[in-house]
Amino acid sequence: MKKVVLAYSGGLDTSVAIQWLKEQGYAVVACCLDVGEGKSLDHIQAKALEVGAVESYIIDAKDEFADDYALMSLQGHTWYEQKYPLVSALSRPLIAKKLVEIAEETGATAVAHGCTGKGNDQVRFEVSFNALNPDLEVLAPVREWAWSREEEIEYAKERNIPIPINLDSPFSIDQNLWGRANECGILEDPWATPPEDAYDLTVAVEDAPDTADIIEIEFVEGVPTKLDGKEYKLSEMILELNTLAGKHGVGRIDHIENRLVGIKSREVYEIPGAHVLLTAHKELEDITLVKELAHFKPVVEKQLTELIYNGLWFSPLREALQAFIKETQKFVNGTVRVKLFKGHAVVQGRKSPNSLYDEKLATYTKDDEFNHNSAVGFIELFGLPTKVNSIINNNSKKDGVK
Amino acid sequence: MKKVVLAYSGGLDTSVAIQWLKEQGYAVVACCLDVGEGKSLDHIQAKALEVGAVESYIIDAKDEFADDYALMSLQGHTWYEQKYPLVSALSRPLIAKKLVEIAEETGATAVAHGCTGKGNDQVRFEVSFNALNPDLEVLAPVREWAWSREEEIEYAKERNIPIPINLDSPFSIDQNLWGRANECGILEDPWATPPEDAYDLTVAVEDAPDTADIIEIEFVEGVPTKLDGKEYKLSEMILELNTLAGKHGVGRIDHIENRLVGIKSREVYEIPGAHVLLTAHKELEDITLVKELAHFKPVVEKQLTELIYNGLWFSPLREALQAFIKETQKFVNGTVRVKLFKGHAVVQGRKSPNSLYDEKLATYTKDDEFNHNSAVGFIELFGLPTKVNSIINNNSKKDGVK
Amino acid sequence: MKKVVLAYSGGLDTSVAIQWLKEQGYAVVACCLDVGEGKSLDHIQAKALEVGAVESYIIDAKDEFADDYALMSLQGHTWYEQKYPLVSALSRPLIAKKLVEIAEETGATAVAHGCTGKGNDQVRFEVSFNALNPDLEVLAPVREWAWSREEEIEYAKERNIPIPINLDSPFSIDQNLWGRANECGILEDPWATPPEDAYDLTVAVEDAPDTADIIEIEFVEGVPTKLDGKEYKLSEMILELNTLAGKHGVGRIDHIENRLVGIKSREVYEIPGAHVLLTAHKELEDITLVKELAHFKPVVEKQLTELIYNGLWFSPLREALQAFIKETQKFVNGTVRVKLFKGHAVVQGRKSPNSLYDEKLATYTKDDEFNHNSAVGFIELFGLPTKVNSIINNNSKKDGVK
Amino acid sequence: MKKVVLAYSGGLDTSVAIQWLKEQGYAVVACCLDVGEGKSLDHIQAKALEVGAVESYIIDAKDEFADDYALMSLQGHTWYEQKYPLVSALSRPLIAKKLVEIAEETGATAVAHGCTGKGNDQVRFEVSFNALNPDLEVLAPVREWAWSREEEIEYAKERNIPIPINLDSPFSIDQNLWGRANECGILEDPWATPPEDAYDLTVAVEDAPDTADIIEIEFVEGVPTKLDGKEYKLSEMILELNTLAGKHGVGRIDHIENRLVGIKSREVYEIPGAHVLLTAHKELEDITLVKELAHFKPVVEKQLTELIYNGLWFSPLREALQAFIKETQKFVNGTVRVKLFKGHAVVQGRKSPNSLYDEKLATYTKDDEFNHNSAVGFIELFGLPTKVNSIINNNSKKDGVK
Repeated sequence: MKKVVLAYSGGLDTSVAIQWLKEQGYAVVACCLDVGEGKSLDHIQAKALEVGAVESYIIDAKDEFADDYALMSLQGHTWYEQKYPLVSALSRPLIAKKLVEIAEETGATAVAHGCTGKGNDQVRFEVSFNALNPDLEVLAPVREWAWSREEEIEYAKERNIPIPINLDSPFSIDQNLWGRANECGILEDPWATPPEDAYDLTVAVEDAPDTADIIEIEFVEGVPTKLDGKEYKLSEMILELNTLAGKHGVGRIDHIENRLVGIKSREVYEIPGAHVLLTAHKELEDITLVKELAHFKPVVEKQLTELIYNGLWFSPLREALQAFIKETQKFVNGTVRVKLFKGHAVVQGRKSPNSLYDEKLATYTKDDEFNHNSAVGFIELFGLPTKVNSIINNNSKKDGVK
Repeated sequence: MKKVVLAYSGGLDTSVAIQWLKEQGYAVVACCLDVGEGKSLDHIQAKALEVGAVESYIIDAKDEFADDYALMSLQGHTWYEQKYPLVSALSRPLIAKKLVEIAEETGATAVAHGCTGKGNDQVRFEVSFNALNPDLEVLAPVREWAWSREEEIEYAKERNIPIPINLDSPFSIDQNLWGRANECGILEDPWATPPEDAYDLTVAVEDAPDTADIIEIEFVEGVPTKLDGKEYKLSEMILELNTLAGKHGVGRIDHIENRLVGIKSREVYEIPGAHVLLTAHKELEDITLVKELAHFKPVVEKQLTELIYNGLWFSPLREALQAFIKETQKFVNGTVRVKLFKGHAVVQGRKSPNSLYDEKLATYTKDDEFNHNSAVGFIELFGLPTKVNSIINNNSKKDGVK
Repeated sequence: MKKVVLAYSGGLDTSVAIQWLKEQGYAVVACCLDVGEGKSLDHIQAKALEVGAVESYIIDAKDEFADDYALMSLQGHTWYEQKYPLVSALSRPLIAKKLVEIAEETGATAVAHGCTGKGNDQVRFEVSFNALNPDLEVLAPVREWAWSREEEIEYAKERNIPIPINLDSPFSIDQNLWGRANECGILEDPWATPPEDAYDLTVAVEDAPDTADIIEIEFVEGVPTKLDGKEYKLSEMILELNTLAGKHGVGRIDHIENRLVGIKSREVYEIPGAHVLLTAHKELEDITLVKELAHFKPVVEKQLTELIYNGLWFSPLREALQAFIKETQKFVNGTVRVKLFKGHAVVQGRKSPNSLYDEKLATYTKDDEFNHNSAVGFIELFGLPTKVNSIINNNSKKDGVK
Repeated sequence: MKKVVLAYSGGLDTSVAIQWLKEQGYAVVACCLDVGEGKSLDHIQAKALEVGAVESYIIDAKDEFADDYALMSLQGHTWYEQKYPLVSALSRPLIAKKLVEIAEETGATAVAHGCTGKGNDQVRFEVSFNALNPDLEVLAPVREWAWSREEEIEYAKERNIPIPINLDSPFSIDQNLWGRANECGILEDPWATPPEDAYDLTVAVEDAPDTADIIEIEFVEGVPTKLDGKEYKLSEMILELNTLAGKHGVGRIDHIENRLVGIKSREVYEIPGAHVLLTAHKELEDITLVKELAHFKPVVEKQLTELIYNGLWFSPLREALQAFIKETQKFVNGTVRVKLFKGHAVVQGRKSPNSLYDEKLATYTKDDEFNHNSAVGFIELFGLPTKVNSIINNNSKKDGVK
């Protein structure tokens, strides 16, 4: 009997998929990753067996997700379309990696995911599977059966698969410690204001406290290591900041984005912790990166972001981009003071032993050490191409050359 | 007697410069532009004559500034270092242009500015002068005399040049309708929180009203034309939004930036109107620009931004970049609804006759018109290079090829 | 009866396609474009009718192809993967455009092409059809029938479709006035030297004459207008240079390229005229474009090249990129002298009324007008970030900060 | 007595500089690097002492130059302005590094170079000095004394400094193993054909042998290691190829380039060995790099090239770019066959254990393993944005929306 490892979430789609795959002749190994959704996954392990899996794994991947994926997003400032720093795109390659590992360990010849045919995640899963083990068969039961909601429920009822009570929620949600993505329902109307119940990690600005929290985050080589002087491992730092910043309404995003599969879709994101960390990290880079590096890094960041969004995490290009990014973080050391208040994470101050901001050069007081005379020569040479162009082409204009 | 046209602000530096230039043997024509500082400039015209100018011009350049410069910043999303959308860099080329025009009209052989030797503005002025008329002599009296504050005041007192009463303000400010820039004083310490008196156009979030304003902005080919259904010319739209958004505390920026002249400096900006317009314009592009255009336009924007920041407005490259940007705006038509509240300008909804967001393609309801089967073929070819790479290079790894 | 307009080449595939489409119930309108293959197409018009078409068009599109497509390649330096300046990718959108026009004129409801399922051209055709008239049905008979060569020949014989005599040529060729592309056969082995019979437009260097031709090409706003003083329209200039440069063995390319559909393929190109024009045009830009423009234009060129290669000619992005390119050509006026010899097109000299090369600035003779002292100030400010970085980060290294 | 380390070439300028620095009160340590000019430097060591140096060093830096600098140019494809792969820009940082090392060893407090005020090399030297040891004083005697040729000769004669016999050569030459740069004299006229005596490493195509040499180069992780099966260290491989390819007239470049200091200058380069290696390396990448990497690497290469050209070798940005490049070379293994003939280095074949070219996917024979049906789905999703754009914006055009 062929064996398949399925990315299992505990929801209706993947529960039905277990049964459906079984009926196609597969022994199903369910695998559910904890990437920081912030809720207990214990019951999921049991549920998988209940609905027909032969084995069921729950894997705590929070640290691996934080250290290898969220950190890359943080240091690479992966703001897709300048709006959101990736959420699902970061967890998919890790889930794929774990599924392939379990397949290789359990002797499965196939892997499966529960995505439909119009999202980005199917691409991310399948490209990752191929990259990691091109010999594995890839199954996409939900895309393949192509049932309506009603047909799926009927199938589930006939086979005693439990129907979740929140099934009539209009929203489709994916969450990990780096953020929460929400789509569908009223959100599909781009003119409609997202309703409050579309949000879960953040309060509305209207409901945020009237007193600010002021925090200090310390970075060592681009990695946030301390919050208000206390050491955290990264996964816990992010979760702590999700709570703290979420309470102040920080990190809501409403974005109409271009999917890889050719359509625009509207998504609502909440990224309280990621918002704070990305903001603080950028400010620390502003004082520690030399100008030419600060001006080119965004080019690399854009490529990295689109690559990850498009599901090409396991590309040699990602490794090369990552080598660039890692090299830039050597001097990103220091402390950033952030005020959390009414939906804002405002950086108030930043300091670093590697700061390239030099008060004696920048000041307009008598301590000024900048050589003002140098400017004359600088401007002359910097402006020389413009001047020659003006002499030649304005003159030729006058001469009627053109 | 040689004649020079001086960019005159009415402040101490340029007042002293009039006298100093006179003593160098120049007849000084003072020229002051109204680019939307929001205060009356009438007294400045008289003051220039008072302190020794032979002629004095006040030019209302608000519309030209809005239509040719601020609009380019708006449509080009000119966020320098992803933080602020340019303020002084936008007005300098226009001021230079007017000075050159007046020099050519009045028969002056020189132009002059009041910048010191360590800022960006000296470069922007001088490169612009060279680009527009390379035959004009360029003078930079403040940079040249290189006096301390005390020496300058003594010189002024000896010659009866009035000393401004706010002379002991620690800040150095430049303002136009697109924003207000502030540097110096306590701001030179990057760890210090900017004090409230560093701000003028915006209230603190703490002092913002508890009731939101919800506004609708209509764009035609990328130009904002109506606010809540009422037509505005652009300069007045920006000023109106400065008031409205400033009241809600929208548009404060605290940035440590890389200057062209090789140093990092800390600046505080306020851009209430620009913030609202840039945010709304981007959202309208998100639904009206086709994906490949949306993904390449930021590359052009970055180049445009750095070019303008560096003072190369009158470069043939700016004209080519502008031709690109203008071409992209044809379909940027529609309406954006923005909520102003507690320092936020949040887009709640957007609609357009040219919207490429297609609810029937995006939806997960039964109205779905997306062909889910196409995804299988798409993923196969999109993922083919990754798969081949995996087959070849994982295999060769196993074979020890390396 | 439904009507379809088919891109007809006169070869076996599209001749069989006429019959096959007819059997599917379509009236077939054949359409063949002359884009400068350099051979007579007269017999093709008749042949289409012979094998079953109801109407047959031959369109002389050489000038439109030269002026709108080849010129964009020339001015945009569209070297795909730094190796070849596009050949088929330039003609496909024009063919698609003509097919759609004829479909609209003749009341056809479908368009068809003869591409297989693994090339780029199917994508270019179909995306262009969709862009120009999304209501038209798109048919791809050759891809759909998926016959082996033998099955196709048998089908043809049964229906009296003439079998071309050169059917056993191992190569698959596409040609227009901008170049000739060749693939298949022995070329599929990347270690094999391309045999001489893979080439048609160029002689081998071994067979090139021992006497050079030295020619002068004059450009007006980036358009080549005169060859050795004689005016040419662009299409004829290219064809003339194909002959002249081909005789000297100029313009052979052997390239392993990345197709859009996910595979690498090996192609042999011949572009004698294009090679000469692209070389000369670049040299003229080298003296007429101001530095910052010369350094950014390649970024736009790369995007334009990949966009066209990928079949997105009719994208709003192409229009915006073209607006950029056109704006840059204003000052690209002048004359370039080129030596054609033994496979080389070497630029020996270039001159322009808009030349920004200034001998008095560049010279090391006593005519030197460059201000050597300016360099001191320039270097001080240009090198300042490096110096500050060195002071801070070398010192902190010594202090053990890290 | 203060001590200065001078970059000494043995020519008139730096010989005079020794004497001049001495008269300014410095003890001069002469330092001459062998970076592969291909001539003996033995006499230079003695000459320095003869004309007044207190110490004189000759350093064989050929291997360090090849392994750390030329190799970066090779793997980074550093074609400045798409024309030449850098020559002097590669050696300057290494010379600066050695000078600083000797200064630190010998207790010197200053370093000096012999550049004038209008070239790029002064910038490259001084920025490198600052980067490596910002405490060292930097002297530029030739720029400072600003003498005419006649004044310099008179000064030399008075002090018994030997006048070189080739002093009336019109050319100014710099050479290392990666290439030879030549400027000045008749070359300053961009319309003039460079005379034969401007070249030294290469023969004219007219004088090239009638028999080709066909060579095979083997690369391991992007490093050329074998030539025709024989192992070479890199420096010797380059020198060997200089001879071999120079004999066939390969690698002449005539370029009008944009200098960092704001002027255009015309340079003639010869790079026989570099030309062959760069050509072969690119071809090997064409079969071993996955598409998305092959398409982004040129962006990194362009930045790396301009950075090195501009003298910023010792920037943290170069280290980050290099980290990217190094990561890409892991799979660049294999062999390239090159034909050297009449000025050409034509790649005839390439093979690699890591080749991603898959004949079974690329072929049009019956061995074809490509899934032709996948194309239908691929095109549908790839073309979807274009189609939606067409439906929306062509329709709205008809409706008069715009």
